[in-house]
Amino acid sequence: MTDPLISRLDPRSFGEVARLVLDTPTYEWIRSGSGSDFGSDNEAAFARRRLRPSVLVDVSSVTTATTVLGAALAAPVIIGPVGLQRALHPDAELATAAGAAQAGSLMIVAVNATTSIEDIAAAQPDLPLWFQLYNWDDRDALAGVIARAEAAGVKAIVPLVNTPIGVNHTSPKIGFRLPAGARFAHFETSPGLIASNTWEYLTWLRSVTSLPIVPKGIMTADDATRAVDAGASGIIVSNHGGRQLARSIATLDALDDVISGARGVEVYLDGGVRSGGDVLIALALGARAVLVARPVLWGVALAGGEGAARVLDAFREELAEDLGMCGIADVARVPRDLVVAAAG
Amino acid sequence: MTDPLISRLDPRSFGEVARLVLDTPTYEWIRSGSGSDFGSDNEAAFARRRLRPSVLVDVSSVTTATTVLGAALAAPVIIGPVGLQRALHPDAELATAAGAAQAGSLMIVAVNATTSIEDIAAAQPDLPLWFQLYNWDDRDALAGVIARAEAAGVKAIVPLVNTPIGVNHTSPKIGFRLPAGARFAHFETSPGLIASNTWEYLTWLRSVTSLPIVPKGIMTADDATRAVDAGASGIIVSNHGGRQLARSIATLDALDDVISGARGVEVYLDGGVRSGGDVLIALALGARAVLVARPVLWGVALAGGEGAARVLDAFREELAEDLGMCGIADVARVPRDLVVAAAG
Amino acid sequence: MTDPLISRLDPRSFGEVARLVLDTPTYEWIRSGSGSDFGSDNEAAFARRRLRPSVLVDVSSVTTATTVLGAALAAPVIIGPVGLQRALHPDAELATAAGAAQAGSLMIVAVNATTSIEDIAAAQPDLPLWFQLYNWDDRDALAGVIARAEAAGVKAIVPLVNTPIGVNHTSPKIGFRLPAGARFAHFETSPGLIASNTWEYLTWLRSVTSLPIVPKGIMTADDATRAVDAGASGIIVSNHGGRQLARSIATLDALDDVISGARGVEVYLDGGVRSGGDVLIALALGARAVLVARPVLWGVALAGGEGAARVLDAFREELAEDLGMCGIADVARVPRDLVVAAAG
Amino acid sequence: MTDPLISRLDPRSFGEVARLVLDTPTYEWIRSGSGSDFGSDNEAAFARRRLRPSVLVDVSSVTTATTVLGAALAAPVIIGPVGLQRALHPDAELATAAGAAQAGSLMIVAVNATTSIEDIAAAQPDLPLWFQLYNWDDRDALAGVIARAEAAGVKAIVPLVNTPIGVNHTSPKIGFRLPAGARFAHFETSPGLIASNTWEYLTWLRSVTSLPIVPKGIMTADDATRAVDAGASGIIVSNHGGRQLARSIATLDALDDVISGARGVEVYLDGGVRSGGDVLIALALGARAVLVARPVLWGVALAGGEGAARVLDAFREELAEDLGMCGIADVARVPRDLVVAAAG
Repeated sequence: MTDPLISRLDPRSFGEVARLVLDTPTYEWIRSGSGSDFGSDNEAAFARRRLRPSVLVDVSSVTTATTVLGAALAAPVIIGPVGLQRALHPDAELATAAGAAQAGSLMIVAVNATTSIEDIAAAQPDLPLWFQLYNWDDRDALAGVIARAEAAGVKAIVPLVNTPIGVNHTSPKIGFRLPAGARFAHFETSPGLIASNTWEYLTWLRSVTSLPIVPKGIMTADDATRAVDAGASGIIVSNHGGRQLARSIATLDALDDVISGARGVEVYLDGGVRSGGDVLIALALGARAVLVARPVLWGVALAGGEGAARVLDAFREELAEDLGMCGIADVARVPRDLVVAAAG
Repeated sequence: MTDPLISRLDPRSFGEVARLVLDTPTYEWIRSGSGSDFGSDNEAAFARRRLRPSVLVDVSSVTTATTVLGAALAAPVIIGPVGLQRALHPDAELATAAGAAQAGSLMIVAVNATTSIEDIAAAQPDLPLWFQLYNWDDRDALAGVIARAEAAGVKAIVPLVNTPIGVNHTSPKIGFRLPAGARFAHFETSPGLIASNTWEYLTWLRSVTSLPIVPKGIMTADDATRAVDAGASGIIVSNHGGRQLARSIATLDALDDVISGARGVEVYLDGGVRSGGDVLIALALGARAVLVARPVLWGVALAGGEGAARVLDAFREELAEDLGMCGIADVARVPRDLVVAAAG
Repeated sequence: MTDPLISRLDPRSFGEVARLVLDTPTYEWIRSGSGSDFGSDNEAAFARRRLRPSVLVDVSSVTTATTVLGAALAAPVIIGPVGLQRALHPDAELATAAGAAQAGSLMIVAVNATTSIEDIAAAQPDLPLWFQLYNWDDRDALAGVIARAEAAGVKAIVPLVNTPIGVNHTSPKIGFRLPAGARFAHFETSPGLIASNTWEYLTWLRSVTSLPIVPKGIMTADDATRAVDAGASGIIVSNHGGRQLARSIATLDALDDVISGARGVEVYLDGGVRSGGDVLIALALGARAVLVARPVLWGVALAGGEGAARVLDAFREELAEDLGMCGIADVARVPRDLVVAAAG
Repeated sequence: MTDPLISRLDPRSFGEVARLVLDTPTYEWIRSGSGSDFGSDNEAAFARRRLRPSVLVDVSSVTTATTVLGAALAAPVIIGPVGLQRALHPDAELATAAGAAQAGSLMIVAVNATTSIEDIAAAQPDLPLWFQLYNWDDRDALAGVIARAEAAGVKAIVPLVNTPIGVNHTSPKIGFRLPAGARFAHFETSPGLIASNTWEYLTWLRSVTSLPIVPKGIMTADDATRAVDAGASGIIVSNHGGRQLARSIATLDALDDVISGARGVEVYLDGGVRSGGDVLIALALGARAVLVARPVLWGVALAGGEGAARVLDAFREELAEDLGMCGIADVARVPRDLVVAAAG
């Protein structure tokens, strides 16, 4: 059943309405940036780019369809991994997955989800899923969840590589807590986080699974090269939404460098993507696709799967419009010189 | 009869007063920028330039007179195409035309005007007129209005080339509507918009009319070259006032590039021109003339043709003053090195 | 008699207090920038520079003393020409001159002063005076006032060269008027302003006076060269305090260029100088001295000659402090590499 | 005894609470910048840098331990010299020293302290101390306090070299006074300040003490070279917290230049360091350690030695976190290319 009010809202307004609807700790949990409150300039990095539109190209039929690691997507927009979604909606990750399936997207399921990968896969058998790992210090436990994910049919695993310490100063302060009755789906009590992983971690992952490995958190060319040499099939440029390292370079500003070291594997951009135009900028600068998280979470919080789908559809529609207005009929053919730095 | 109050207002204040006078939807229809609410930095691009004045030149007689495609103008300021002007004033486009004629300007009449090109031409026989086309999917209908425009004596046709999809997210939201009784003058019900045109469109236009063709919406050197090769006699650099593509490069920032590909045809700049000094900057950077729309519309809204004329006269007077203060006696001789980037 | 309150005020606060003391039209007459309300970035140009201090230099005795065209000054700070000073203080230009003499400065007397050059020279026989001309269309009248200035002992004449049209949109709007009983001292009714002068004007001036000629308003290297070739003994870089050409380049940003064309004559900077540190920046970038006007006028408005002297003394003291803190003992030896662009 | 409230405050909030707790003159004495109220962009210079994190490095054990001139520190964060600390806390400099010792830092004691160097050294025998000198005009008095400092076991002397005149326009205005009963510990009445020192001053210091000499206030490569040639064992880049020269270059922006002339001696950065990430930026750009003052003073003002220690511990912990997140296990191995300029 469609919510009569939600259908009258522009998805760009979802965050504003979510502030009125969610309890404050949950709202702040999603909204807040780096623990140091320096924030991140991931979003600002997009505002420093401009598009040079071409005209009179046949864009009567614009296609936003693409593939990531061979999986077909309606648009190059992936749902980034976020755990604990039971805090947002009773249907939790099942809602997000339903929205992703409806919109033709791909969902990265977090290991600290409140719904199991088996349940998500069963509910949305056609939805491509990736599975994100935390830096557990217990390799047996890691091998166990990887085996579960493989069995559930996920298409890639996504080890976080940029959270050696896992600091988040904000969460305790804002009072965020899981709702009563919510449980982690992939463990009873969270395994310890290892203080640090090394490149051996990727080698080990390579040895325990035949799934493609897509490390999330690479920010330099050197690390991109090492990741591919260690067996990565794709790379996610990410600074964890600016929540960790206060003075981190913006992901968009690191993209060129990462691609230069990536030996041609697909590179995905995470951080600051807030519109179809932002997707277009990331593609022009070489990303194969982008991850979005906060915008989708607002949608889930307001209207479950329908909300997630509306957000993803809006990204796709805006991307199609902007492609058309830039004279590009196929999202696979976005030229590099479409983007220039903003003057001044 | 001159309105006693209007004559005491500086034309730069017209927008402010229009906000108090117009109903809000109509005011917002004119004021609003891109549907994505990112706005445009067309105006900001002018603020990033500075003038290097020369002195002790004989500027006792400063001429702002110029020609565009051979038509004589009192100043290089053209009225950009805007339809539906009945929403602004009972005399609608006839008021604007009267003001343009009085001020020695040129008016681009929009095909979705509420006054016919025949009536405008009849009312102002000495006013040079251009005629702007939408991307109708019905070529017979297009050929029909072109024939009417030719018969009415227009001097050029202006196909929009940057609205493949024609998205405007803002208009429905702001509640803008034509006043009761207002009708489109060049069609009963609007022909469908084609999702996309190609360069063949210019070739076809070239085949159905002997009028000069001045495409509006070119933003790159490559497209400028193609337009001239397809028969364009002039080029309007425009991003539709920033109403369409949220992250578009500013038109002033695209001017150099477009001129470099324009094979010497006249290039006109649309977007962000708000003062005589802005006109001077655009001319120094190579524009033959500029289009203004919003400022003239405020004038029409407040005082019909008289208001339009006052705005145009103010542009001309400011341009003359700034030319004089820069030591330039003839608007045709604005040197390129008059303009530098703002420091910082 | 010293005003007890004024001596407790920091001269940097004079403008703030003047706003409370002066009638609004007079306050706005001094405060206001360009008629187009775009303002000027003369002040901002200083904020875009940084100083690189050297240490452990013997600055136990810092000298700010310099000469301009051979006249000895306590500091390289000249009072810029402003007419109509009767609007500020009953003693008008005599107050300003008294302050200038007390502080060891030089005063440029405006031809539209409310006190005659003869009276000023008689009152302050040791004060070096320059005399500023307007662009009168009556050369006999000009020759007449030049002869009076020569006879009164002025040391240079200062033709304005950047006011071909003399537009000031602000003054009528703000309601500024001379107080009843005030009269122009060098004419009964103002001679007409010529719409434009040419380089022949300098040649003519050269022919009617043996005084050094210091044109005010040069903003480019080419014009500097022409001015010197036409007989100028010094050059004032000025954009009339940003009151005229809305988008003018900042004077500080034009300084390098002007000096490059000035064939070694002294170059003075007008516009945006608000502290001793600003003076130091201008000197490092090659200016021989700076003109200040608004700060001195606030002083005159509050406390006549004493106020003017306090402002000038504050500039000198701040300059001495900043010289000392930069390790420079002599204002004549400010190195070019003292100044760098602000980062970011 | 631990203050129950202070332990619940993030040290980053100490300044905010200090504003509520301290009397206004004391608060403003610490907070205020340059006497000219231009402030300094020392802090802004850090915000213009970004970090490029590397991942999958073994950072299970991150060490922040370092040495300065051979003294072991828990982290490269030194307490900058500030006198008159009795105004902040009854235990004055003894509180600061206790916090420094507890946190494994180094304290630079100011000659105008309200506690003697002998008492501080006796109270904290394991704490490395440096001793900061003012520009007294009485060399016998200087030699006397140096001898006392030597006898007390200080490890270096720190002559200020950037206060030739010692201007502070703000202090009198804000009404700051030492509390009744507080006395200077190293003199009865302050010796006069010499208007200026020269490089001979360093030579003289070299002749009267065998302690390492670390001049504070060097801002250029040339001065760094001269300082080392005159016998300096280390250099502190400082502009006195922006309190003196209004338009001074930021210390972080001067760091590269100073290091280039420092002939390999240790260079320390003073000014604008407000977080562990800032320390990391300074280290990447070549600083051996940083000085912090205001943040520590807020801690002392709120909770004496415990407050100081909490601030220092927070710097160390943040630095360790940021090192870990950047893939750097040892603070001695921070690569230069970790830092890039912020885009835009």
